Amino acid sequence: MEETIFTKIIAGELPSEKIYEDEETYAFLSIGPINPGNTLVIHRAPHPDIFSIPEKNLVAVIKTVHKLAPIVRDAMEADGVNILMNNGAAAGQSVFHAHFHIVPRFEGDGIGPWKEGSYEEGELAKVGEKIRAKLK
Amino acid sequence: MEETIFTKIIAGELPSEKIYEDEETYAFLSIGPINPGNTLVIHRAPHPDIFSIPEKNLVAVIKTVHKLAPIVRDAMEADGVNILMNNGAAAGQSVFHAHFHIVPRFEGDGIGPWKEGSYEEGELAKVGEKIRAKLK
Repeated sequence: MEETIFTKIIAGELPSEKIYEDEETYAFLSIGPINPGNTLVIHRAPHPDIFSIPEKNLVAVIKTVHKLAPIVRDAMEADGVNILMNNGAAAGQSVFHAHFHIVPRFEGDGIGPWKEGSYEEGELAKVGEKIRAKLK
Repeated sequence: MEETIFTKIIAGELPSEKIYEDEETYAFLSIGPINPGNTLVIHRAPHPDIFSIPEKNLVAVIKTVHKLAPIVRDAMEADGVNILMNNGAAAGQSVFHAHFHIVPRFEGDGIGPWKEGSYEEGELAKVGEKIRAKLK
């Protein structure tokens, strides 16, 4: 597991605007916020993404997200929040230490939602089959 | 808790392209996919969003997301995935039964990431204080 700026933030070698921490997790403000108050929640152990993070670590992180989401909303007087986790450079991940964004959202803020597409006739079932096949 | 199309999907009153189910959770393909293979994961209990879903239910849902994320990636031969949960109409939520999207992502697919903003001098600390104040 590679060292990233998040490893250094946890170690106190880089500054961060800390929101919360507990034995397993650490939450701080993104310095490149999608909206002000954009909070990042990470596990102290530096697994890169959802594919590599152990289930128990992900559970610890989501518990902190659950705790902080209403807090961030209320603090920012937001109308809602997105919970977002980018996994892989193709998905927009830039720091390879698994993290959730809590993004405060405001009516008419012009951010997303991502445009929804559609399936051609029969494509939905084919895609379903393809994914289920991997479960076997 | 209001009945939604997801309640009806779980009850089998509406069709769905089911990917996976267990005692607590249910996963199926979005019919308005951000990219093909866009999978939705929900708890059977119809809490509207992250603000109302009990922690233990959210934990059950994230465990299923953790299980399915690599499966969806591999099945779709994707380069990464976004994990996304919209909470509130302002955040792009359209069905008020809490759900995570697993969105397969491909190099150069032109979807996001959301544009990052920045903070004015001193604003970062003020926002941090505002959020931490709600924790007390």
